[in-house]
Amino acid sequence: MSKELTSRAENYNQWYNDLVLKGGLADYSAVKGCMVIKPYGYALWENMRDQLDRMFKETGHVNAYFPLFVPKSLFEAEEKNAEGFAKECAVVTHYRLKNDPDKKGRLMVDPEAKLEEELVVRPTSEAIIWNTYKDWIQSYRDLPILINQWANVVRWEMRTRLFLRTAEFLWQEGHTAHATKEEAVDETVKMLDVYANFVEEYMAVPVIKGVKTPNERFAGAEDTYCIEALMQDGKALQAGTSHFLGQNFAKAFNVQFLNKENKQEYVWATSWGVSTRLIGALIMSHSDDNGLVMPPRIAPIQVVIVPIYKGEESKPVIDGKVKEIMAELKALGIRVKYDDSDAARPGWKFAEHELKGVPVRIAMGLRDMENNVVELARRDTKEKQSVSIDGLGNYLKHLLEEIQQNIFNKALAFTKENTREADSWEEFVKMLDEQPGFISAHWDGTPETEEKIKELTKATIRCIPLDNKLEAGKCILTGNASTQRVLFARAY
Amino acid sequence: MSKELTSRAENYNQWYNDLVLKGGLADYSAVKGCMVIKPYGYALWENMRDQLDRMFKETGHVNAYFPLFVPKSLFEAEEKNAEGFAKECAVVTHYRLKNDPDKKGRLMVDPEAKLEEELVVRPTSEAIIWNTYKDWIQSYRDLPILINQWANVVRWEMRTRLFLRTAEFLWQEGHTAHATKEEAVDETVKMLDVYANFVEEYMAVPVIKGVKTPNERFAGAEDTYCIEALMQDGKALQAGTSHFLGQNFAKAFNVQFLNKENKQEYVWATSWGVSTRLIGALIMSHSDDNGLVMPPRIAPIQVVIVPIYKGEESKPVIDGKVKEIMAELKALGIRVKYDDSDAARPGWKFAEHELKGVPVRIAMGLRDMENNVVELARRDTKEKQSVSIDGLGNYLKHLLEEIQQNIFNKALAFTKENTREADSWEEFVKMLDEQPGFISAHWDGTPETEEKIKELTKATIRCIPLDNKLEAGKCILTGNASTQRVLFARAY
Repeated sequence: MSKELTSRAENYNQWYNDLVLKGGLADYSAVKGCMVIKPYGYALWENMRDQLDRMFKETGHVNAYFPLFVPKSLFEAEEKNAEGFAKECAVVTHYRLKNDPDKKGRLMVDPEAKLEEELVVRPTSEAIIWNTYKDWIQSYRDLPILINQWANVVRWEMRTRLFLRTAEFLWQEGHTAHATKEEAVDETVKMLDVYANFVEEYMAVPVIKGVKTPNERFAGAEDTYCIEALMQDGKALQAGTSHFLGQNFAKAFNVQFLNKENKQEYVWATSWGVSTRLIGALIMSHSDDNGLVMPPRIAPIQVVIVPIYKGEESKPVIDGKVKEIMAELKALGIRVKYDDSDAARPGWKFAEHELKGVPVRIAMGLRDMENNVVELARRDTKEKQSVSIDGLGNYLKHLLEEIQQNIFNKALAFTKENTREADSWEEFVKMLDEQPGFISAHWDGTPETEEKIKELTKATIRCIPLDNKLEAGKCILTGNASTQRVLFARAY
Repeated sequence: MSKELTSRAENYNQWYNDLVLKGGLADYSAVKGCMVIKPYGYALWENMRDQLDRMFKETGHVNAYFPLFVPKSLFEAEEKNAEGFAKECAVVTHYRLKNDPDKKGRLMVDPEAKLEEELVVRPTSEAIIWNTYKDWIQSYRDLPILINQWANVVRWEMRTRLFLRTAEFLWQEGHTAHATKEEAVDETVKMLDVYANFVEEYMAVPVIKGVKTPNERFAGAEDTYCIEALMQDGKALQAGTSHFLGQNFAKAFNVQFLNKENKQEYVWATSWGVSTRLIGALIMSHSDDNGLVMPPRIAPIQVVIVPIYKGEESKPVIDGKVKEIMAELKALGIRVKYDDSDAARPGWKFAEHELKGVPVRIAMGLRDMENNVVELARRDTKEKQSVSIDGLGNYLKHLLEEIQQNIFNKALAFTKENTREADSWEEFVKMLDEQPGFISAHWDGTPETEEKIKELTKATIRCIPLDNKLEAGKCILTGNASTQRVLFARAY
């Protein structure tokens, strides 16, 4: 191996960190809780972003950009939202530094440059956006507004983990405004479906669609819809949320419109977002003890070609042939890299590409070339095979799709195997420790019981699945009557 | 007209603001000096960004993402850079808000949540990036690093103008690291060429490539290369800069590498950036008293089709034909919009699309359809013509390129007409007031003279053009000997 990796069995958290750092996805930074997204990680994010962006535009959304800062008076306007984020805000209080008279070459905050009103670095943009929508909306003709924003946001987290929980992260946030409640609810559900489709079809991560309990709702929402995914250690990860905001923000910012009946009415709102956190979900869904496993549809590199030179004279022959193959693959839209650097031996390169999760590796040696074949290795199954150079492009196109499907199927089987029903408190507690995963269990529907279960077990209600069937039962904790099972898990 | 516009002659600055606001590009925000980029303006920025991004990748660069915040101790490490930006920094000092005990429902900065070290919101990222590169660079094998970042930055400007000068703006910043001075200088010039090509070929804005005088250099650079463009009021606008940073940042952050001779050496650096300010240049280069004029290659909408209904029964007939045409145009990669909203009459729509600068407008009426033609209007020349529906797609593809070229030629002619030589102080001063534009004049090469000229006239040396020919002469202010002319102008 080029780089020592911790195995999952040895230390799951360390395994995750090793993959992020040694796989070249991200790095720690000099700023507490903030990460550097390295080129390989950023290329992955670009592929995810571009596909999501296409899906947003296909569903009628447009992009815009709103300020990074939220004046405190706007931030506090929607009370629940403000309360939810106040404890983790970066606050700008000054707009100038000056030379420190006591320390040569050092700077200090200039006390004379204090802002009249503090600015909060956006943890989310409902406040600044709804304050803007106020000026854009007069009549029903101005609705709906279907805007998305790609941006950085800051939430001052105390315990951070690369991608999973960082003080600054990249995300998109959709903020839509509607004339009716029904339309806003439809939008909320539509965007949840977009997220579920994206995460399953492109990231190959199976998800459960559901609704959050009131306890777990976004601060300021009437209803929070979510997609939840199961990681290899049996913990759940919230992969995306879509909020029906009711008229809360319209009322906080006094955004009314003249409806068709010529009456003033408050506007209905939604917001929805996914973030670089998804990369954490990707890593923990598919990777193994040898490194990352990238789903082909969003892999920065889909195919890597490694030349196996035998003496100097073989170089131009192999390079020439690879050049032809590269042209064929690129014409088919395959993201291919030729790793012909002379800084490392083939074995080292193999391990490196395995670590980085490149779906297909092709080794190109002289003898193979004479036989008009290449040696091809799949990252997902580790199978090797000899494949004819004729029609290699089309072969790879199909193979990449097969790998995509295989990775998804594997994750889906894992999720199904690790979703269990518990019908008593003892069973529930035992499962959590011995067979961690999603646990489907009855709950009496009260926030108090939910809170108590969390306190006792660290498990939370991930969601009430959208396709839930009603079923009479008894709450696992209180024994009180329940009408349906909900999905519990310990979570990231 | 749908919306009243101020004319250039009446009030140039108001004309500009009218175009930005009424053209739907941007809006003021609740945060002093920060703007909202509206969907139409953001779509324009996306087209610019995507093209630039392609050009960066074609020249071997990759994207990454570095933290928004720069700890004060890193910010002050490169002294000149710190000094240059200290006076306009947003500074985060606290990480939490709490309920204000004196005002119900209000929040206040929690004095107990004061950061040990203040964080500067990045005005530019050299400091945080070079502090990171330190960990990434050990040997010459780790070089070059060719990284670009798309990000928001904050500079606390006192007098702001939409797009031209805002407290927060969007930009890209390239930060490269090299083993030799020569390689770094080559990179600096290469990226200046990329900028010049992009701005001329896609934005249709002609530019002068040059080098800044020491007075006008980027804080921390050894040399600043720039592209300068001339606006319609005869003022210059700096459209992009590329900096050769020497070893300044490597020394400030102690970034050394083991060279091929096994010796430790400081790394050589460049940085280069363009921003949403370019949109200001675009507006002021091409627009007229009727509104914006978008160059087709980056126009959010290249062709708009407006139906001219005569009675209800004509609607399905026209809509059906337009659907066919839209499909043809889209297949050719033309960005086309069908404006069939019933909220406005055709005349109002015509004015609106003119205001928004859509390059080609097509009016589609029943009688035209019967004759198998459409009425087509060019935004740039305002010419109207009747064009056959057969082969309309290809006709438009060529027409859009012709419009692109025409817009560029017009701007180029304007720049040439308004670039003059001045050979005496009197001539120079008179020109500045009566024939504003670029003035090519002799300067004795001292910072003092440059400063004095600025003080007396508000004109600055925009650059020493790259293709400058040497020519003996006398400084327009001091009469001292000069070896070449330099380019003066009043500037944005």
